[in-house]
Amino acid sequence: MLKLDFHPAGRHFLQIPGPSPVPDRILRAMSYPTIDHRGPEFGALGLKVLDGIKKIFKTTQPVVIYPASGTGAWEAALANTLSPGDTVLMYETGHFATLWKKMAENLGLKPEFLGLPGIEGWRRGVQPDMIEARLREDRGYAIKAVCVVHNETSTGVTSEIAAVRRAIDAAGHPALLLVDTISGLASADYRHDEWGVDVTVSGSQKGLMLPPGISFNAVSQKAIKASETATLPRAFWGWDEIIEMNKQGYWPYTPSTNLLYGLSEALDMILDEGLEQVFARHQRLAAACRAAVNAWGLPIQCADPSVYSPVLTGVMTPEGVDADAVRKLIYEHFDMSLGTGLGKLKGRMFRIGHLGDCNDLTLMATLAGCEMGLKLAGVKLEGSGVAAAMDYLTSHAAKPQLKAAA
Amino acid sequence: MLKLDFHPAGRHFLQIPGPSPVPDRILRAMSYPTIDHRGPEFGALGLKVLDGIKKIFKTTQPVVIYPASGTGAWEAALANTLSPGDTVLMYETGHFATLWKKMAENLGLKPEFLGLPGIEGWRRGVQPDMIEARLREDRGYAIKAVCVVHNETSTGVTSEIAAVRRAIDAAGHPALLLVDTISGLASADYRHDEWGVDVTVSGSQKGLMLPPGISFNAVSQKAIKASETATLPRAFWGWDEIIEMNKQGYWPYTPSTNLLYGLSEALDMILDEGLEQVFARHQRLAAACRAAVNAWGLPIQCADPSVYSPVLTGVMTPEGVDADAVRKLIYEHFDMSLGTGLGKLKGRMFRIGHLGDCNDLTLMATLAGCEMGLKLAGVKLEGSGVAAAMDYLTSHAAKPQLKAAA
Amino acid sequence: MLKLDFHPAGRHFLQIPGPSPVPDRILRAMSYPTIDHRGPEFGALGLKVLDGIKKIFKTTQPVVIYPASGTGAWEAALANTLSPGDTVLMYETGHFATLWKKMAENLGLKPEFLGLPGIEGWRRGVQPDMIEARLREDRGYAIKAVCVVHNETSTGVTSEIAAVRRAIDAAGHPALLLVDTISGLASADYRHDEWGVDVTVSGSQKGLMLPPGISFNAVSQKAIKASETATLPRAFWGWDEIIEMNKQGYWPYTPSTNLLYGLSEALDMILDEGLEQVFARHQRLAAACRAAVNAWGLPIQCADPSVYSPVLTGVMTPEGVDADAVRKLIYEHFDMSLGTGLGKLKGRMFRIGHLGDCNDLTLMATLAGCEMGLKLAGVKLEGSGVAAAMDYLTSHAAKPQLKAAA
Amino acid sequence: MLKLDFHPAGRHFLQIPGPSPVPDRILRAMSYPTIDHRGPEFGALGLKVLDGIKKIFKTTQPVVIYPASGTGAWEAALANTLSPGDTVLMYETGHFATLWKKMAENLGLKPEFLGLPGIEGWRRGVQPDMIEARLREDRGYAIKAVCVVHNETSTGVTSEIAAVRRAIDAAGHPALLLVDTISGLASADYRHDEWGVDVTVSGSQKGLMLPPGISFNAVSQKAIKASETATLPRAFWGWDEIIEMNKQGYWPYTPSTNLLYGLSEALDMILDEGLEQVFARHQRLAAACRAAVNAWGLPIQCADPSVYSPVLTGVMTPEGVDADAVRKLIYEHFDMSLGTGLGKLKGRMFRIGHLGDCNDLTLMATLAGCEMGLKLAGVKLEGSGVAAAMDYLTSHAAKPQLKAAA
Repeated sequence: MLKLDFHPAGRHFLQIPGPSPVPDRILRAMSYPTIDHRGPEFGALGLKVLDGIKKIFKTTQPVVIYPASGTGAWEAALANTLSPGDTVLMYETGHFATLWKKMAENLGLKPEFLGLPGIEGWRRGVQPDMIEARLREDRGYAIKAVCVVHNETSTGVTSEIAAVRRAIDAAGHPALLLVDTISGLASADYRHDEWGVDVTVSGSQKGLMLPPGISFNAVSQKAIKASETATLPRAFWGWDEIIEMNKQGYWPYTPSTNLLYGLSEALDMILDEGLEQVFARHQRLAAACRAAVNAWGLPIQCADPSVYSPVLTGVMTPEGVDADAVRKLIYEHFDMSLGTGLGKLKGRMFRIGHLGDCNDLTLMATLAGCEMGLKLAGVKLEGSGVAAAMDYLTSHAAKPQLKAAA
Repeated sequence: MLKLDFHPAGRHFLQIPGPSPVPDRILRAMSYPTIDHRGPEFGALGLKVLDGIKKIFKTTQPVVIYPASGTGAWEAALANTLSPGDTVLMYETGHFATLWKKMAENLGLKPEFLGLPGIEGWRRGVQPDMIEARLREDRGYAIKAVCVVHNETSTGVTSEIAAVRRAIDAAGHPALLLVDTISGLASADYRHDEWGVDVTVSGSQKGLMLPPGISFNAVSQKAIKASETATLPRAFWGWDEIIEMNKQGYWPYTPSTNLLYGLSEALDMILDEGLEQVFARHQRLAAACRAAVNAWGLPIQCADPSVYSPVLTGVMTPEGVDADAVRKLIYEHFDMSLGTGLGKLKGRMFRIGHLGDCNDLTLMATLAGCEMGLKLAGVKLEGSGVAAAMDYLTSHAAKPQLKAAA
Repeated sequence: MLKLDFHPAGRHFLQIPGPSPVPDRILRAMSYPTIDHRGPEFGALGLKVLDGIKKIFKTTQPVVIYPASGTGAWEAALANTLSPGDTVLMYETGHFATLWKKMAENLGLKPEFLGLPGIEGWRRGVQPDMIEARLREDRGYAIKAVCVVHNETSTGVTSEIAAVRRAIDAAGHPALLLVDTISGLASADYRHDEWGVDVTVSGSQKGLMLPPGISFNAVSQKAIKASETATLPRAFWGWDEIIEMNKQGYWPYTPSTNLLYGLSEALDMILDEGLEQVFARHQRLAAACRAAVNAWGLPIQCADPSVYSPVLTGVMTPEGVDADAVRKLIYEHFDMSLGTGLGKLKGRMFRIGHLGDCNDLTLMATLAGCEMGLKLAGVKLEGSGVAAAMDYLTSHAAKPQLKAAA
Repeated sequence: MLKLDFHPAGRHFLQIPGPSPVPDRILRAMSYPTIDHRGPEFGALGLKVLDGIKKIFKTTQPVVIYPASGTGAWEAALANTLSPGDTVLMYETGHFATLWKKMAENLGLKPEFLGLPGIEGWRRGVQPDMIEARLREDRGYAIKAVCVVHNETSTGVTSEIAAVRRAIDAAGHPALLLVDTISGLASADYRHDEWGVDVTVSGSQKGLMLPPGISFNAVSQKAIKASETATLPRAFWGWDEIIEMNKQGYWPYTPSTNLLYGLSEALDMILDEGLEQVFARHQRLAAACRAAVNAWGLPIQCADPSVYSPVLTGVMTPEGVDADAVRKLIYEHFDMSLGTGLGKLKGRMFRIGHLGDCNDLTLMATLAGCEMGLKLAGVKLEGSGVAAAMDYLTSHAAKPQLKAAA
């Protein structure tokens, strides 16, 4: 039997920026017995989740659900719209943007990587003016797509996609706009249609509160049109057959049935709370978290307050303090998982996830674990982050949250 | 379908002194399909839990498991050992001791209620000298049993049972010693055999981390002997048939199969952590909790530090502050359940449970919720309890707790 | 970890007449985290199940739910309404009627046991004329209660309660009517109010499809009136406080929270299918089962077709064939549990449960297992029971049963 | 909340050839909370499942596990080993072989499709002599890979892979051997190393008894060598990084954590029963199923007894009887899902799955449902298949199967 419990007692705190904690309700829904993916019950399930997920992306256009994890949906976005040798303009927001660029290379595309230099570039959002300038230069429209990451999970920066859209439009350039909001969806406001995104890539294990294993492409009509001439080889990732069969609630090959049960439940939970309320809750918790980091006197990785992420907060450790040693100490003493520093940031920072199934007291436990761990690690703190976060929470939107109170 | 989720998002914090949070592992074990209670698999389950539960009571004598909640086990202890009109000496530690006395009256017994006067009596443990004195007076041995509560759930006081035993022995009195440790078992050290207890009463929904629904009588040979002549009517509660059939792992009537699955898992968890480690963990968390209450400048309900409960802490609110209003505010704002003041303490205090599946960060979340709630309720606090608790936790037994760290 | 799986592969068939197989939906509902039994969510749950369960009993009067298994509810029915030394008229339908009588003796009552002589008495239902005759003799109304078992689980006989009511009325006798329908409720039609029953006793692990652990007393106003003067000692079983607190959805002591989650789900399932449809389904499956037994040429334990049980069928084995050896062989070869012969019927018969979460194919698997087991045990069968059951099922009420078909 | 229950009562019988019924044990294991895929617990899980799955494939070489369903693993096998324009020799065993060929075309490969003509070709296994002859002609080694389906799910034919290996060797041809055993793995004997397979493709939702969502490539050193020069674009499917990180139990991108919990449990179950015992059980159930079909007088789709599938049996309906109408009738009356006729066989046959978590009584229920449904559909049957299957089961390997019996 599965025996993963290294822990003496009490609940593990999973405070990485995804996979986020999966609510019991969703785990229970996922334990419904697997059914015939060609039977009438499945069709009803399929139609329900295909309709519901559109509300989360704020789109009326098709959302393709893959029985694959998020990296696959990255590949799908490229493989459906581009041809070998195509130039794509990608923006370096951090580690995940870098991985996406590496994938584009592996698939035979020619990515151009824009961005501010050095680590500073990883502390700010996408610079739309740089994109606009580059597109204006591209008179022959060699650039077929602009690829940006909405919520960069490695840094805690949430770029403004509407501004990227405006930049493309200002340049009068026909490139497709491909956006990764794997870690942003259902936590940060996102508007696939309004922002004119052509393909939005996302995954299950973040704001949707599901285990990893399914992923998404929300696609525009322009993207579908592009897919008709795009020649990158594709079979599993091909949109056309999926979109066609989805009309009846089915898939051309076996879908990930039990994760779709989970998705059905997650949609109920999110739409029941209200999507805007979900966003407001994330903003509130993120602000409280930043109040704590500021009180500690530690720098927040994101250097531009206008693009602070509501999903996670990157905390830089002082010179000479190995952030991973702090993380290990916290894991061992307080049974909490935090995110590591990735790529250029390895050992320089840790990441606190405050997304999905998170509330005030979960956050307070998280911050207490960080504060105690930092102290045990010998880090000098200017003040109590926990106290600052409590101040924030009691002075902002401190109103009864339970419906039972009504 | 069951729809109990009044909560917008995130985990509810159930910090009442029982039912305590049921770990996922136990909920999963309880969802094993119900089996034939007369089949060979059941016998194996029965023998396993009947053997394991003895280790928790620290006894080699029979432990009777009832498919009933704890109140039933109170009745069983009385009904098996006493006869109509018998005098029993009961000690008033608080609300639950008072309820047990009321039950004794309902069953036709004559309880005598000892105790210190007024609310002060509810702030201290059992006074063994009072018991000894009363028993010395009872030359004719009219008193058939001495009944005390080990961990009084309404106050947070854990009386010394060994001292009660010594008091009875010092008086040379033949009365049975009946002890309720419903909320103490598997959280506070308890020694049925060593302390010479005749019947120990307990339940599932506290330190054993199970849902309510099964309960226990650990019985001495002296108690069994008494049951042979005791004449209170009994059928469901009768020990004899149960103990006889338990030898093969079965019960005379249908046992609570799925709760026994949970008990099996709970025993694995507790014995894997180590019973003494479980007790030490409870002591550590309780001390951190009291550090917080002291820092707030609020009185702890238990006025004698030698009998502080490791299970729960009673917090008295200042004059004029309705403790239940504070609890309601905390419930509505922070999705946390705390225990109410019971009986004489109604409105005067609230109770923080820190038992069972509890760890450092769960406690920190709990204390943060209390501190924020008290502030929102307008209670003046002397200082930050959260800071005091973090100080305690980082300076006491702050060592790696995960086996993975080894 | 719990490791009960002795089985190589595939689902165990639990075809005893209770505990019946618990549907996955109910097991999932039961794994909802335990909540505060004094909080607002609990009150909502309590009111829901207390209202719903009345529909199952077909009553508008109180139904008391105990956190205890069915045997406890037997005791509750007696303890609340009777006084030490009271005479009760009980009818011997089988083993469980006999156990209830033994309980009455243990509680200090004076049961009179009516019934037809020998094993023949265990093959027929309650004889109302015998009850009427006895009551007519009882000019001084010494008899305080008439106790009968509705669905006798040891034999597969479902007595007509309305006829017992008529017998009491015909005799003009004031005795209370206490009925055990532990294994009949929610499988066989039952009408607490219409039939003028004073206390109906039932349990969770049969037609309600729950694990064992909660049980019921449906009570009439006459029974409540009787409880005001009845003097059997009672505390845990006392109706008054429970009924009073139930008005708000709460209980005076800790209820069996997670089984109440299960009850909530079971009520949804049963009322969604429709109570009359549930009864019809049981009748249909029982008839198919009897068609099989008849085809085998084996006697059905119940000798009166007008009182065949829709819940279970008792199958008598030929002279010289130990029914328990057949059961063991079936268990070991086909991973199916059947009911044993109880009391006077030990080794003479086995019992096939076809109750609760049972459908056509479950029944066919069950009958195939019996038929193969009987053959392997060397029992000569007249014909194929499986074929006969298939004939019955295809020729009776063979209509589309899935809503998806609409 | 998820509400898929169209069924009035009782368990649905999912007897399609996959997804197969997921045992409760696996569903429970999958409901363990999602953990950090970079933490120490995950590494332990990863190493366990990566080691265990090799035993199922009978290989000591790497097995790559994808967080994607089986169709993806088909693509991975091709994308890692081949280059655009490569010729591949594929054998038409049925519908799934045809789909794999279509995928090869979509990916820019040049598949050659061998096979016997017409529907007859779908009733027999791979003809190794045809493969050998074609390879002998290919003097210039234009053919880069031979692709065959081991267990063709659309027909119920299990081809002999060892013979294909011998054919390739006899021809002295260097082509890779790629085998799809998506529906055969862990049900039919399979030997990746002994049979010299270069890439074996499989999935989770068949013999492994998991929900769909993860899939496999077992790879030989020769295949890895080929991947170094193969130029089909690949990123998500690339073996190299995965195999490298798997050495520590991790994956380069987020794996499907909760399905890996399920895999861990499935491996325990299968290896505990014993892989050879699992195969024998499937053979026994398949033989009983065929005995039934023969007794009905209906043709089995597979016309060559030497390649009968132990996983599923295809049943051809008589001329004029629409097999899908029979399936629909069975679904609606008996709550059982059967497989449809695919491709050339649409409306001509239905498929009975008897794989994974299946035992004697599950099979008997399934056959009874088929027999009753065929009768209700007006199909004339020669005799009772149910009786024939019972005869088979009681006369073959009819021995106690429960360990408890020991």
